[in-house]
Amino acid sequence: MVGAPLNKTSLPSANGTRTTTTLSSDSVLALNTGDPTVFEPFWQKMGNKCDVLIRASDLMSYYSDKNNVCWFLEPELGDAIKRLHGVVGNAVTDDRHIVLGTGSTQLFQALLYALTTPPAPEPVSVVSSAPYYSLYPEMIEILHSGLYKWAGDAYTFNEDGRPYIEVVNSPNNPDGTHREAVVNGGKGKVIYDFAYYWPQYTAITSAADHDIMLFTLSKCTGHAGSRIGWALVKDKDIAEKMTEYIAISSIGVSKESQVRAAKVIGVLCDGCENVGVVESENFFEFSRNLMAKRWQKLREALKHSECFTLFKYPREHCLFTGEFTRTLPAYAWLKCKEGIEDCNEFLSGLKIVGRGGKAFGVDPIFARISMLSKEEEFNQFIERLLVATKGISNGH
Amino acid sequence: MVGAPLNKTSLPSANGTRTTTTLSSDSVLALNTGDPTVFEPFWQKMGNKCDVLIRASDLMSYYSDKNNVCWFLEPELGDAIKRLHGVVGNAVTDDRHIVLGTGSTQLFQALLYALTTPPAPEPVSVVSSAPYYSLYPEMIEILHSGLYKWAGDAYTFNEDGRPYIEVVNSPNNPDGTHREAVVNGGKGKVIYDFAYYWPQYTAITSAADHDIMLFTLSKCTGHAGSRIGWALVKDKDIAEKMTEYIAISSIGVSKESQVRAAKVIGVLCDGCENVGVVESENFFEFSRNLMAKRWQKLREALKHSECFTLFKYPREHCLFTGEFTRTLPAYAWLKCKEGIEDCNEFLSGLKIVGRGGKAFGVDPIFARISMLSKEEEFNQFIERLLVATKGISNGH
Repeated sequence: MVGAPLNKTSLPSANGTRTTTTLSSDSVLALNTGDPTVFEPFWQKMGNKCDVLIRASDLMSYYSDKNNVCWFLEPELGDAIKRLHGVVGNAVTDDRHIVLGTGSTQLFQALLYALTTPPAPEPVSVVSSAPYYSLYPEMIEILHSGLYKWAGDAYTFNEDGRPYIEVVNSPNNPDGTHREAVVNGGKGKVIYDFAYYWPQYTAITSAADHDIMLFTLSKCTGHAGSRIGWALVKDKDIAEKMTEYIAISSIGVSKESQVRAAKVIGVLCDGCENVGVVESENFFEFSRNLMAKRWQKLREALKHSECFTLFKYPREHCLFTGEFTRTLPAYAWLKCKEGIEDCNEFLSGLKIVGRGGKAFGVDPIFARISMLSKEEEFNQFIERLLVATKGISNGH
Repeated sequence: MVGAPLNKTSLPSANGTRTTTTLSSDSVLALNTGDPTVFEPFWQKMGNKCDVLIRASDLMSYYSDKNNVCWFLEPELGDAIKRLHGVVGNAVTDDRHIVLGTGSTQLFQALLYALTTPPAPEPVSVVSSAPYYSLYPEMIEILHSGLYKWAGDAYTFNEDGRPYIEVVNSPNNPDGTHREAVVNGGKGKVIYDFAYYWPQYTAITSAADHDIMLFTLSKCTGHAGSRIGWALVKDKDIAEKMTEYIAISSIGVSKESQVRAAKVIGVLCDGCENVGVVESENFFEFSRNLMAKRWQKLREALKHSECFTLFKYPREHCLFTGEFTRTLPAYAWLKCKEGIEDCNEFLSGLKIVGRGGKAFGVDPIFARISMLSKEEEFNQFIERLLVATKGISNGH
């Protein structure tokens, strides 16, 4: 699941349009959303390789394939998704239905519907271990549904023999840790949200083989504007109910985005399969290097910091790269050192907008900062951290 | 609001992919959805005029314009929408916020949220006068929301001083009639669903000037696969809440579709403004002629029918064409004559799949049949009606 703008209040305080504005040291730095613009340089390099031409009479129908459970999925995108998981090795696609969504955000809601229909006498509890992705409770609570309700941190949940849903986000947004289900209940259903289970963020340790798995293009290739997510679902009945939900909530998913996503994924897979031949065209190598450089800069900047600490992540053998690699999360999960009680408030003083721990169900000494911003923004972030460290060590 | 595939049960029984299959006289004819493929020939004629080229690094961000209430709306699409309403003259856009949705379907749900938040002690009743669009109750009831509930036919609704929402669909899906709000309550809010208020379906009698108006690309240009709808909203607070809903439910709307919609609308407007010069490029003239031919064929086929009757629609002065024109609805709203109790069941006997009156809140003697199908399907429909008429008059 993505880490993106939610509602008005969590939106950056608007510093203009999408064109890169030159950041001055006193401008507000909005790093509270997971807009993955960090990957743009790779796709700029691709020149016309991903060009998609759409003509006046293309893609006019609601339908893509009336024979498929998910009748609005363009067959070429379905094929591209299967190829992608094959190339990366992060998920099993055999004997699965692919259900498409307007981002994995919509699919999460489709799953809530599918897993709680027909309705139980009481709304089904949905939990996730804290710190959990801040959009989970928002999505669950927004319509005051009688089908399901948000029940908070999975660690403290007492299932008591009743049905429940646990969401497992691994690697986890916001803290980058690897996760497993924690509630040991017989009547539970588990949604695996694998938005960040891609080689630029973490080692691919096995092909995930769960009944319900979510992925999104935003965090895989960086094409957040396309709003393309997919679910791999074993059970046909669940896939049908999800399709029904998406039919009722938006009558399918934009076909232009689908065709474009298929093209982008195809070019990405070509680049990975030619590894060694045209090294610079391996997206995951490129993006992993980018993330590694950013994490190195961040760790160096905070080495002598009296304000913040960072998690350390394990090194694991990655089946995709064939090397031992360390997790390089999409977000920095900052923890304040003693004396600072509200991490996000402290960041505000540096004109950095993050998202505070409370939104993720934990203490305000934590805050989440996107590591996926544009280069210029990231560099400003590091500069401000360094200034703060110096300021404090100079006794200011 | 569109008249499209809803859930599995109302889907056509799958006769293959999108490629035109040759229809034989015993194949099932699925005319239960409003897939607007009738307009494809116009766009085929446009050749490369609407070509949209999308490159690898285009449109990657979640954001389109951080200064706009609807921050995921591409400015060029906002401009195109305003121009379109200016050219057609069907709605006032001044002093309105444009909120974009994944089809008007998503916007309808965004409006339900916006108009019932913060929540009242009791769910707010939502009504529409029967026959009403069959997706309204489905959208309202799907999540068992505590914010709002479906309360059925507006004609029989007793508002009793409580807040309510009335949906006015004009011209109305399924029956093509012109509608006004019918509940006279002080605490009511009205959603005007103008999916079919375009010159190919009806006379444009004035520029609609309501507080909340919905439109969709699907039924305007026929580009249903793009999933683009928009709301014109006077109140900033409502526009903000709608944007919040769309952010939480799908983090915006596909950018590829937006760019493509802007291009299509631009070419459409160019064609209308050059009217007289390049006559064949006026989309509304072309599509109105298509609809007129179909309605003529249908009325002729049913002239001596002992099975079905059709409504008669008024002729009104159309500000767009400058002529007196008759309503040519997107659906045929068939009423069975005495002796046939279930219209949809009777159609099934002809291997025609329609949608029965019950789904629209009225008697099963009615059924809705799409007039927007491909030419071949429409001709088959007429043929089967003629066969039925002959069959019955021959005493079979």
